[in-house]
Amino acid sequence: MRPSGRAADELRPVRITRGYTKHAEGSVLIEFGDTRVLCTASVEDRVPGFLRGTGSGWVTAEYGMLPRATGERTAREAARGRQGGRTLEIQRLIGRSLRAVVDLDALGERTITLDCDVLQADGGTRTASITGAYVALADAVARLLETGQLEASPLRGQVASVSVGIVGGAPVLDLDYAEDSAAETDMNVVMDEQGRFVEVQGTAEGHPFSRAELDAMLDLAARGIDRLLALQREALAGPRP
Amino acid sequence: MRPSGRAADELRPVRITRGYTKHAEGSVLIEFGDTRVLCTASVEDRVPGFLRGTGSGWVTAEYGMLPRATGERTAREAARGRQGGRTLEIQRLIGRSLRAVVDLDALGERTITLDCDVLQADGGTRTASITGAYVALADAVARLLETGQLEASPLRGQVASVSVGIVGGAPVLDLDYAEDSAAETDMNVVMDEQGRFVEVQGTAEGHPFSRAELDAMLDLAARGIDRLLALQREALAGPRP
Amino acid sequence: MRPSGRAADELRPVRITRGYTKHAEGSVLIEFGDTRVLCTASVEDRVPGFLRGTGSGWVTAEYGMLPRATGERTAREAARGRQGGRTLEIQRLIGRSLRAVVDLDALGERTITLDCDVLQADGGTRTASITGAYVALADAVARLLETGQLEASPLRGQVASVSVGIVGGAPVLDLDYAEDSAAETDMNVVMDEQGRFVEVQGTAEGHPFSRAELDAMLDLAARGIDRLLALQREALAGPRP
Amino acid sequence: MRPSGRAADELRPVRITRGYTKHAEGSVLIEFGDTRVLCTASVEDRVPGFLRGTGSGWVTAEYGMLPRATGERTAREAARGRQGGRTLEIQRLIGRSLRAVVDLDALGERTITLDCDVLQADGGTRTASITGAYVALADAVARLLETGQLEASPLRGQVASVSVGIVGGAPVLDLDYAEDSAAETDMNVVMDEQGRFVEVQGTAEGHPFSRAELDAMLDLAARGIDRLLALQREALAGPRP
Amino acid sequence: MRPSGRAADELRPVRITRGYTKHAEGSVLIEFGDTRVLCTASVEDRVPGFLRGTGSGWVTAEYGMLPRATGERTAREAARGRQGGRTLEIQRLIGRSLRAVVDLDALGERTITLDCDVLQADGGTRTASITGAYVALADAVARLLETGQLEASPLRGQVASVSVGIVGGAPVLDLDYAEDSAAETDMNVVMDEQGRFVEVQGTAEGHPFSRAELDAMLDLAARGIDRLLALQREALAGPRP
Amino acid sequence: MRPSGRAADELRPVRITRGYTKHAEGSVLIEFGDTRVLCTASVEDRVPGFLRGTGSGWVTAEYGMLPRATGERTAREAARGRQGGRTLEIQRLIGRSLRAVVDLDALGERTITLDCDVLQADGGTRTASITGAYVALADAVARLLETGQLEASPLRGQVASVSVGIVGGAPVLDLDYAEDSAAETDMNVVMDEQGRFVEVQGTAEGHPFSRAELDAMLDLAARGIDRLLALQREALAGPRP
Repeated sequence: MRPSGRAADELRPVRITRGYTKHAEGSVLIEFGDTRVLCTASVEDRVPGFLRGTGSGWVTAEYGMLPRATGERTAREAARGRQGGRTLEIQRLIGRSLRAVVDLDALGERTITLDCDVLQADGGTRTASITGAYVALADAVARLLETGQLEASPLRGQVASVSVGIVGGAPVLDLDYAEDSAAETDMNVVMDEQGRFVEVQGTAEGHPFSRAELDAMLDLAARGIDRLLALQREALAGPRP
Repeated sequence: MRPSGRAADELRPVRITRGYTKHAEGSVLIEFGDTRVLCTASVEDRVPGFLRGTGSGWVTAEYGMLPRATGERTAREAARGRQGGRTLEIQRLIGRSLRAVVDLDALGERTITLDCDVLQADGGTRTASITGAYVALADAVARLLETGQLEASPLRGQVASVSVGIVGGAPVLDLDYAEDSAAETDMNVVMDEQGRFVEVQGTAEGHPFSRAELDAMLDLAARGIDRLLALQREALAGPRP
Repeated sequence: MRPSGRAADELRPVRITRGYTKHAEGSVLIEFGDTRVLCTASVEDRVPGFLRGTGSGWVTAEYGMLPRATGERTAREAARGRQGGRTLEIQRLIGRSLRAVVDLDALGERTITLDCDVLQADGGTRTASITGAYVALADAVARLLETGQLEASPLRGQVASVSVGIVGGAPVLDLDYAEDSAAETDMNVVMDEQGRFVEVQGTAEGHPFSRAELDAMLDLAARGIDRLLALQREALAGPRP
Repeated sequence: MRPSGRAADELRPVRITRGYTKHAEGSVLIEFGDTRVLCTASVEDRVPGFLRGTGSGWVTAEYGMLPRATGERTAREAARGRQGGRTLEIQRLIGRSLRAVVDLDALGERTITLDCDVLQADGGTRTASITGAYVALADAVARLLETGQLEASPLRGQVASVSVGIVGGAPVLDLDYAEDSAAETDMNVVMDEQGRFVEVQGTAEGHPFSRAELDAMLDLAARGIDRLLALQREALAGPRP
Repeated sequence: MRPSGRAADELRPVRITRGYTKHAEGSVLIEFGDTRVLCTASVEDRVPGFLRGTGSGWVTAEYGMLPRATGERTAREAARGRQGGRTLEIQRLIGRSLRAVVDLDALGERTITLDCDVLQADGGTRTASITGAYVALADAVARLLETGQLEASPLRGQVASVSVGIVGGAPVLDLDYAEDSAAETDMNVVMDEQGRFVEVQGTAEGHPFSRAELDAMLDLAARGIDRLLALQREALAGPRP
Repeated sequence: MRPSGRAADELRPVRITRGYTKHAEGSVLIEFGDTRVLCTASVEDRVPGFLRGTGSGWVTAEYGMLPRATGERTAREAARGRQGGRTLEIQRLIGRSLRAVVDLDALGERTITLDCDVLQADGGTRTASITGAYVALADAVARLLETGQLEASPLRGQVASVSVGIVGGAPVLDLDYAEDSAAETDMNVVMDEQGRFVEVQGTAEGHPFSRAELDAMLDLAARGIDRLLALQREALAGPRP
């Protein structure tokens, strides 16, 4: 029995709110239960130095957590003077995951930056970030198409992410903070709309995990991501805010 | 005529939402029109070095702006490796303003940190921050009283803030971004519930301002702050979330 | 009675020494009693990125305090790896104050940097900095005119600054360190030669201040600044060093 | 056919040299083909703040790359003033992997730091680091036992790591730089001596990978790690240097 | 013939002004011609971590240059976020030179920090700093003796410094900026009152120098330092400011 | 009698291994006894800003020490966020020493960076670095000549370095760590193949040193460097790796 009463293969309630803020080309509040992340997509007409003049665009991500998104206040990274290793790791993961479904050449010499800022944390902030950032990205691309800045969409797939883990010996889907703290193994999975893997990151927290456990977790992840991809499509079915 | 159609002495619609996030001892979303700031109050049982062992508490503030709170994306301060001068200036102002209404000795050896994070910016983020932070602070203090950690409230007053300015030659209250950019003079005023000044910061942007203009602006500010203090009291009249 | 025996509206002895060092285009030692600040104006033929190609010039300021300018040694900011919030706040104030009297377009694509370094501190370092920096700026401009680099002066006004405060319940002018530490309210005022305000920054240290107190302080400031403007003109009446 | 002529399931020649430098409690040069990493284990009688007084020890890792370990010179991180995201990610991975086989309570209040410095890079530096660091750690522990500082070994398992990937459509083991640059998918696997997973990190570089591809890669990894664990045991069979 | 008209073995006019600022325990303005350095000695009742509890004191130095001490404005190190290599090198040299004449055990658990800040630079700032810092140190020690904080002086010698060089093929003493820029070799020498060397730092700028040239430079340095030591004694003969 | 049993004028066994790593244009492992430094020379087709467009090239150096090169683990500079004063001082010394024998104009608009990384430290790391870096530089230049990127060698001399000191009252050559820690005086000397000085840096550690002691040390240094220059030539006599 999970602390939340959920079934092993049950996601938390997911809510995707497009147009959450007004300035960004894409702005999405995504909620996985009590985890709330604001994902904005910003389009800029320049690329990093290593791409200048190549005709190729860039998609990148930055991740942050408000100091009191967490149970105890976390020191503000801007005040500490640098982003921690966990932050850098997460934002690199988000960036790679989204680049996996973008044709950078088709994007042209522009950069889309996905800012994922956690307003409230309850486990799974990185998977919520990826899932929400995809929707923000889709909105930003839609806008580029509507305004005629792009003629064809550079999006060549859809991507979502969920966490799975072994808690109390059993594989479970979409861990909240209580489960995450108690997990023996924690795995983040990113998949596309064809059921293929974009990223798989599994870490033994308590004790190493067997191949059978890995397989069980991947099965759960596939089911969860399937549902998340549907929720993204649903959210994007409405008019652009 | 103001771009927004407001009268010269008219505030933007103000909304104060308590309990906006769940972890913080006080958590308030304040909206001054399209400006939206999340203000959280975090209580910690320790004080900065210079107060250790004195029995006195501390109230401090930190300010941040999400990268895409603004019309153009602003570089993330955590990524740039330091908080800019504007940020430091604002968070020092917020901290001073709130300390003005707290009896630090009565607070005991604990620190209350007010984190003011701008989710969406449309002018007046620092005045909204101060006004919202007061409500978050009041909630955090209420909780310390309810849980018996404090026997008497260290709050000895109420504080709110608004901007005033000279735009197109005329004094106006609570400037939005469009007015702020065009203002000849911009002034931030912080006052308490007795109509006294806690902070006055006026800056000539276009051309220096006369004593008469200063007086007109202060009159407007007093009226606006009066209204904001009432809105704070209204918001706090409901049960603590 | 003030600790220094001065009348409430009496400035400390002010001394302005032009040509204090030899390399800078303008170099002024200004003394407000025991407060001594070296203000240099440096002219460089380039502007910050945001002005490049616009034809406009720039005036900016940097502020520093020698480690032992103060009663207790203060850690060197260069060694600590960053300028503190107070430093950034002051140098932004100095820069804004001087830009208020310069026609940046008439300056052409060059930058004048005012470095204000406190050799000895006894209260009022920021107001002395502004007052001295104006003289250094005037010398630098005079030199640009003499050498033919400029045909007309971009100076369109004169600016000076003084602090006022409420100490022991009474408004006083030009606080020294002893008064500053004991002040209930501390206000820095910057005005031009037409008696208009460029900056007004008032902070309640002990308790909030009333409108009547504010008015009394502004009256004192106006008188003090009038005298400082005269002293600047006197100093500039002599030949350029 | 692989560029190196190796079979798909063939490791590069692996060499493990214990006692490579003289000061460290454990010092191992590990070579995976042309990749050469110096792994040292340093024992210190103190623990990070969060463990002080708990009786528990700590195992951590730091990773670095000499500027010219690579084909093009890489800027020195010490000169740039910070460790990059990739470095932080790798050193966190190494630390987690080794902690998975150490009983921190049994270690007592001391820290063992594994420094993994890449002298020459040709792909797989993180997997070589983990594999070599285990041997350095084992030597440091052996020394603590020999000198009587520990009575029982806190090592509760053995750990090694290898990379696998999909190159040209086919799964291959232990990618060198040429293969790594061309890989469609790159996966780092860390396993213990019971064939269980400690970490699995797979990234789609070119295109997402299927479950079948994942399975094939994991099979290869298991075989490679088996061989690496044997090589570690062989190396440790000799006398401690 | 030297640009300044000086003889090869002639110092620039040297002026030592004690009590230049009022807060520091020792405060000396030293001038070597147009080079002007403010040297302050600050006494603090604590020592760096590595000396805590040892009963030994510490003497250290910090060096800075005002941005416009030089012909062209130099970027402020506090603004750049770090002290440059040249600064660190010089302050380490000053610290070592003064520690050479202090019995740190006799100083007791206190730190004396010598801050050497260049107000105006014209070559030889580090040698002027050492020479002036000695006088500031002597004043600070005198004060510790007068106030009874120390019973016996920890000063066990006297130290001064001068530069020598080869300019236009000829050895010269105490190079000003014009000579320094043209020097083939530049050497800084620190000596004590017994004519012994504390530091010798010679650098071939244009072409390597012979043993004979080295000898000629050391002869000049010895003569110059002899004169500087006398000037220090003369300055210290007067009453403590 | 020296701890190592060496005669006063005896170098430690010196070993120079060319081609130690494969990517760099020059890669040399130099050993002075137990001190081992990896010196790589990297050629890049660009120069620092101040040389751009001048046609002149640049030679520079960076120095680092692996954390456990020393008896006690030293904190990693990349993790601490900056290079220490000692590191900056040493790398500036290496750079100057090598530039002394290079005709930068003849090098053309390219930069050669000498990275000197200490794998194991036992005293004399900076002198070993200079001596080894020269060989790496010579190899890099040879390669530029072989590939036709240069037509004539920009090397106009040969340079090597050794330490000398006064230990137990007697002058000795090439101090190891045990001697270095006990030395009363420590001097690093850099000379060219004509027996001329490039750098002389002598520091009194315990007590100041006399002119006679200085002379004795310089005599020893000259002899030692003579031997090192011969060893460099021997090493370079073989084919380029």
